[in-house]
Amino acid sequence: MASKQPIRAAVLGASGYTGADLIRLGARHPAIKITALIARAHAGQALAQVFPHLGSLDLPALLTADEVDWASVDVAFCGLPHGTAHSEIKKLPDRVKVIDMSADFRLRDLGTYAEWYGGEHSAPELHADAVYGLTEHYRDQIKSARLVACPGCYPTAVLLALLPLAKSKLMEPEDIIIDAKSGVSGAGRALKQNLLFSEAGEGSSPYGIGSHRHVPEIEQELGIAADAPVTINFTPHLVPMTRGELCTSYVRLAGTATPADLRKALNDAYGTSPFVRVMEEGVIPATQHVRGSNYCHIGVFADRLPGRAIVVSVIDNLVKGSAGQALQNFNLMHGLDETTALEQLPLFP
Amino acid sequence: MASKQPIRAAVLGASGYTGADLIRLGARHPAIKITALIARAHAGQALAQVFPHLGSLDLPALLTADEVDWASVDVAFCGLPHGTAHSEIKKLPDRVKVIDMSADFRLRDLGTYAEWYGGEHSAPELHADAVYGLTEHYRDQIKSARLVACPGCYPTAVLLALLPLAKSKLMEPEDIIIDAKSGVSGAGRALKQNLLFSEAGEGSSPYGIGSHRHVPEIEQELGIAADAPVTINFTPHLVPMTRGELCTSYVRLAGTATPADLRKALNDAYGTSPFVRVMEEGVIPATQHVRGSNYCHIGVFADRLPGRAIVVSVIDNLVKGSAGQALQNFNLMHGLDETTALEQLPLFP
Amino acid sequence: MASKQPIRAAVLGASGYTGADLIRLGARHPAIKITALIARAHAGQALAQVFPHLGSLDLPALLTADEVDWASVDVAFCGLPHGTAHSEIKKLPDRVKVIDMSADFRLRDLGTYAEWYGGEHSAPELHADAVYGLTEHYRDQIKSARLVACPGCYPTAVLLALLPLAKSKLMEPEDIIIDAKSGVSGAGRALKQNLLFSEAGEGSSPYGIGSHRHVPEIEQELGIAADAPVTINFTPHLVPMTRGELCTSYVRLAGTATPADLRKALNDAYGTSPFVRVMEEGVIPATQHVRGSNYCHIGVFADRLPGRAIVVSVIDNLVKGSAGQALQNFNLMHGLDETTALEQLPLFP
Amino acid sequence: MASKQPIRAAVLGASGYTGADLIRLGARHPAIKITALIARAHAGQALAQVFPHLGSLDLPALLTADEVDWASVDVAFCGLPHGTAHSEIKKLPDRVKVIDMSADFRLRDLGTYAEWYGGEHSAPELHADAVYGLTEHYRDQIKSARLVACPGCYPTAVLLALLPLAKSKLMEPEDIIIDAKSGVSGAGRALKQNLLFSEAGEGSSPYGIGSHRHVPEIEQELGIAADAPVTINFTPHLVPMTRGELCTSYVRLAGTATPADLRKALNDAYGTSPFVRVMEEGVIPATQHVRGSNYCHIGVFADRLPGRAIVVSVIDNLVKGSAGQALQNFNLMHGLDETTALEQLPLFP
Repeated sequence: MASKQPIRAAVLGASGYTGADLIRLGARHPAIKITALIARAHAGQALAQVFPHLGSLDLPALLTADEVDWASVDVAFCGLPHGTAHSEIKKLPDRVKVIDMSADFRLRDLGTYAEWYGGEHSAPELHADAVYGLTEHYRDQIKSARLVACPGCYPTAVLLALLPLAKSKLMEPEDIIIDAKSGVSGAGRALKQNLLFSEAGEGSSPYGIGSHRHVPEIEQELGIAADAPVTINFTPHLVPMTRGELCTSYVRLAGTATPADLRKALNDAYGTSPFVRVMEEGVIPATQHVRGSNYCHIGVFADRLPGRAIVVSVIDNLVKGSAGQALQNFNLMHGLDETTALEQLPLFP
Repeated sequence: MASKQPIRAAVLGASGYTGADLIRLGARHPAIKITALIARAHAGQALAQVFPHLGSLDLPALLTADEVDWASVDVAFCGLPHGTAHSEIKKLPDRVKVIDMSADFRLRDLGTYAEWYGGEHSAPELHADAVYGLTEHYRDQIKSARLVACPGCYPTAVLLALLPLAKSKLMEPEDIIIDAKSGVSGAGRALKQNLLFSEAGEGSSPYGIGSHRHVPEIEQELGIAADAPVTINFTPHLVPMTRGELCTSYVRLAGTATPADLRKALNDAYGTSPFVRVMEEGVIPATQHVRGSNYCHIGVFADRLPGRAIVVSVIDNLVKGSAGQALQNFNLMHGLDETTALEQLPLFP
Repeated sequence: MASKQPIRAAVLGASGYTGADLIRLGARHPAIKITALIARAHAGQALAQVFPHLGSLDLPALLTADEVDWASVDVAFCGLPHGTAHSEIKKLPDRVKVIDMSADFRLRDLGTYAEWYGGEHSAPELHADAVYGLTEHYRDQIKSARLVACPGCYPTAVLLALLPLAKSKLMEPEDIIIDAKSGVSGAGRALKQNLLFSEAGEGSSPYGIGSHRHVPEIEQELGIAADAPVTINFTPHLVPMTRGELCTSYVRLAGTATPADLRKALNDAYGTSPFVRVMEEGVIPATQHVRGSNYCHIGVFADRLPGRAIVVSVIDNLVKGSAGQALQNFNLMHGLDETTALEQLPLFP
Repeated sequence: MASKQPIRAAVLGASGYTGADLIRLGARHPAIKITALIARAHAGQALAQVFPHLGSLDLPALLTADEVDWASVDVAFCGLPHGTAHSEIKKLPDRVKVIDMSADFRLRDLGTYAEWYGGEHSAPELHADAVYGLTEHYRDQIKSARLVACPGCYPTAVLLALLPLAKSKLMEPEDIIIDAKSGVSGAGRALKQNLLFSEAGEGSSPYGIGSHRHVPEIEQELGIAADAPVTINFTPHLVPMTRGELCTSYVRLAGTATPADLRKALNDAYGTSPFVRVMEEGVIPATQHVRGSNYCHIGVFADRLPGRAIVVSVIDNLVKGSAGQALQNFNLMHGLDETTALEQLPLFP
C-alpha cells in the first residue's frame, strides 16, 4: 500500500479537536499523505503550536484555505463548524473528494437544516449528492460518493444501536427516549465558562433539553428505517470525562419482541462489521472500554417495565463519533480495508 | 442552644463515607456532642487514622458497639451496611433514638425486604414503628419517631421530584423512566476494582440495570402517593465525580397537565422547605451547584414528545442523600430548626 | 453577636472564584451583612446568574462600583485582578475598611511591584499603610489595620511552612527549592484554552517556571524573617483538580538542625493557631484533607540527602489561600473570634 | 514482516495494567503472535472478563504458568510484581527470551536488591546476565540480551533527562532533587483505599518520601554515568490522573555550564532516538501531550537560583515507562525497527 502513490489529504479545521484526531490517525495511515492543514485563525503557526502532542510529525504549517494549492490535494477532511463548512466546501475543486465532519450535509431536507442550524445552505447542489456517512449502514453509497457527510457523534452512537431495530420493526418508533451522556470534548475547543475544568469537573447536568441539534438527524434516519415519521426524546448530559459518549435508549418492544430478539437483530446487522460489537447478555458497555478507538459497543437489557427494553451504546466521540468514522469512510471510498489506520485498541486504563 | 444540655450522639459505621459526613456536619452542630464512634474493623484507632480530614476534632477513638457505654448516648446515627444495621440497632436500649441511614427499615413490607436484600429481618417489631425519613414529606411522623429510616440517596432525589406529581395526579404512574447518574462515593468505601481511580475515571456506564435495590423503595413511596401500584424503570449510571446525584425522570403527563402545572405543584409542595429549590423555567439543575450542601434542585422541562415532561433533580448523595438528611431529621426529632448545622452553602467550584 | 448591628460588607469582583467563595462563607457569617456585590461586566444580573450555587441567598443584584451606595458599606472585600484593584480601592471612602485579595498591596517595594506586575501603582499612600495579611504571622498589625493585603495562595502555603524555620534560623535561606502544585481554580475564571476540562484534565505540567508572580512576595517575607536577602526556586505545576495547593519545599538544614527541630519550631509557632496543623512524624499532608476548609496542614520529613529536609504544606487555595484568610483577617479586625464562619470541616471524600 | 514466521509471545501478569498495555500494543505488532496469557488468580477466565477493552482480540484464555506449553513460546513479557517475577522467570526454558517489566533484575547489586525489596533473589545467575533496558542508553547490550530488565517508570523519566547530563559532567552529581508526579495507574491495579476514585480524585499528596523503591535504580545508573556514587532526593507525588509521569529535576550546574549546554547535551544524546524529544527553549512538557504514546518529552529551564537548572521530563508511565519500552526492547532484540507497533501518536485531548 505504502509503495503506491499516496492519496494527498487536506484537513480543514486543523486547530479543533476533530481536526486534531483526524491528523493523529491520518498521519499514520499508510495510504495518506497530509499535504495541507487549514486553520484560518492560526494561519502561519506550526501545528506543534496549536497541538503540541502532534509536534513529532513533519507536517506543513497551518494555512488559510486560500493559501492552499488545491492541485496537490486529492481529498479534504473537513472539521469546520456547521454553517462555515458548506461555504468552504463549495469552493473546493470538483475533483477533490470531501469527507465532512460538520453538520452541513447531514440533513436531507434543507428546510430542516435552516430551521435547526439557523441559516440558508449555500451549496444545495452539493447537498443533493451528499451521502450520509454512517459507515455500517451506507457502505455502498459511500464507496462511490464524492461528498460524505459523517454523522454527528450522538447520532452515530444512537443510530448504530437503534437503526437495526427500526428496520426490523422490533421497536415501536413513537416511544423512544434517549438519555445521552457525553464527555466534555464533545463540545469542542471553544472557550466557554461551563467547559472550564473547575466548572465541568466533579459535576453533571443535562443541557440542550429538547433542542439539541442532533435531534433531526436521528429522527431523519430512524424515520427512513422505520418508514414512518419518528419523533424522539433526546436528552444529552455533560459528564466530567474528556472522551466518550454513552447513550441509554429506552424503547418499547413491538408485538411480542424480546430483548433477545433485539440482540439477534443487532448481531445480524453487524456480524461482519469490524468495529461494532454487540455485547453478550449481561455485559454492560462502558465508555472507558472504547476510549481512543473506533469501536462501538452495544448492549441490550430487559426493562423492569413490561414490554420495554433498554439499549446501551458507547463510542469515543472523537473517533467513531468523528475522525475515526471519517477515515473509515475514506477507506471505503478508496477501496481500502475498512480498518486501515483504525486498528488501535482502546486505551484503558 | 449550645448552653443547654447537649444531646449525646453515637455514630455507628464511623469508618464509612456516610459516617464521615455525619461526623463532619454533626461535630459542628450546636446541640450535639458526639460521645461514641463505632467502627468494628477499626476499633482502637483514632478517627484521624481512618479520616485524616477529621483529625482536628477532639473525639473519642473508634470502638466496637460492645465497648460503648450506651447510657451516655441519647441518639444513634447508623451508617452501617444494610443487613448489618437491623441486628445492631436491635441491640440498642429503647431510650436511644435511632436515625438509620441504611436500607434496613425503609421498606414497609418485610417480604419485599427479604426479596431485595436477601435475608430475614431480625427486628420486625422495630420495623413496624419505623418512620420513612424523607423529611419534606414525613415531617409530622418524624417529629415523634423513635426510629427514622432515612431514604437512600437515589430515592431522595427521585421522590423529592416525583412525589408531588404523583400526589397531585399530574403524571401517569405507569410510565415512569428514571435515568440516574451518580458520583462514585455513592458506592461507598468498599474496595472494588471498578471504583479505582484508574478505572472509574474518564468513563461512564450503567450498572445494576433493572435490579438496583433502590427500586422497591421508590415504587413503594410513589405507589402510596399515587394510591396505586407503581412499577418504574430505574437505570443508574456511574459518572466520574465523587459527589453528586442527578436523576432525569421521563414522565407522561396526566390529562391536560403541562410542565408549568408540574412546576407549580412542586412549588406548592416545597414553598416553605428550606432545602428544596424548584428552579425557574429554563434553569437546568447541575450537581456541582449543590455539592457539599443539603440542597435539592429540581427543574421541569417540556419534552419533544407530546404529552410528556422531563423532571431533573440533583443532590449531594452524601449530604441530602444521607448524612445531611439524617441531621435534618434529627433536628425535627429534637424540636430544633430544620436547618441547624446544615446551613453550609454548596462548594463551587 | 448576631443581635448586634451587622457589619455591612461589599464584595468587589463578585463574579470571580475568590469573590464567590467570599460570598459562600461570608453569607453565613453571623456579624456580616452583604450589602453590595460589584462585578462590572455582569452589572444588572442576579448573583444566581453568575453563580447558581449561591442562588438560595437573598442578596442584591450585581452592580458597578459607581452604582454602590458606599455610605451603607463598612468593609470592602476585594477580589479584583491585580492592576485593577489598586485603582478601585483608591476610590473607596476612608472609613471603609479594605480586605484585599489581589496582589496590589502585598509587595512592600513599589519598584518590585512595577517590575513584576508591569505597571505603576496608583495608590502609593494607601500602599504604605497596608498590612500583609498572613494571619498567623501578623495578627497584631492586622487587628488595627485599615487595609489588609491578603497573601497569594502559594505564598500562604509556603510561608506558613517556612517562616518559622527562617525566623528560627533552622534552615539556610539561600538554598530553598519549592515545587508547588495547584488545582485549576488557582488560575481563576478566565477563559483560557489550557484551563478547559479537556485540556487540563488527565495531565500535569509546570508553568511560569522562574517567573511566577508569587516569587517576590515569598522572597520578601522570607527575607524579613531571615533578616537577609532571600532568593528562591519556585516552580508551580498545574494538577487536574479544582481546589487544593500542595507545596513541597526542599530546604537545607542550618548547622546541626534536624527535621525534629523543624517540627518543634512549627509546633511552637502554631500551637494556638486554630487553622494550622503540624502533622505528627510520618503523617503526610494531602490537599483532599483540607478541601473546602481554612486549614493548613504541614509535615516535615527527613531527606535522603544528608543535611536537608522536606517540608510539605497543603491548603485550599480559595479558602485559606484567599477568601477564608480574608474572613479570618476580618474577624481579627473586628474583635471577633478568629474562627467565626470558618468552622467548616474539610469536605472529604 | 507479517509474512515471516511470527514470534510467539507469552505475557505473565496479564491481569495487571502493564500486562494489559503490553497486550494492547503487542496484539497489533506485525511480528508478534500472543500465544499465552498468564494470570494465576484469573486462570480459566477469558481476557475480556478482566479487560473488556481487549475483548475484540482473539486470544487464548488466561492460564497459570504451569499450564502453558512453553515449547510454543519464544519470548516472555513479564508484568508480575517484584519478588514474584524472579522465581517465575527462573522456571522458564533457557531458549525463551525474557523482557521483564518488574524490578527484580534492575539492580546490579543483589545486596541492594535485598535491602530495598525485602528478600533474597532466587535467580542470581540470571541476574548476572540481565541487561538494563533503558533503550536509548543500552541499545547494543539489549540487542544481544536474553533477559532485559526494563526500568521502572520513574527511572525511565528521570534517567532519560539526567543521564546525558551526568555523562557529560554538566551537572553536579551530589545535589540532585527530583520532584516527581505520577498518575494513579502507576500504583497498579491493587485494591487500596487511597487509590479509590473518591479518595485519589481531586487531591494530591506526596508518598513514599525518602523511601521509594525506584531510588536505588536511579542512583545506580546516575552513579555509573557520573562515575561516582550518587545520592538523590526523589520525592514522588500522587496526582489525580490515570496515566502520566512528570519529573521536575532540580540540578546544580557544573562549572560554567548553562541551560543551553544541557539542552545541547540532550539533543546530542537523542538526535537519532525516535521517541525522545528535547523541547525547544521555552516549550514546557506536559504529560497530556505524551498520553498513550511511547514518547518522552524533555525541557530544560534556567533556574532563578544562580548556578542551577531545572529539567522537566514527561512520559506515559504504562507505555514508555513500561509496556512500550518493553516492546521497544523486543524490537531491538529481534532486529526490527525500534518503532514497530509503537507508532501511535499521543491521545489528546
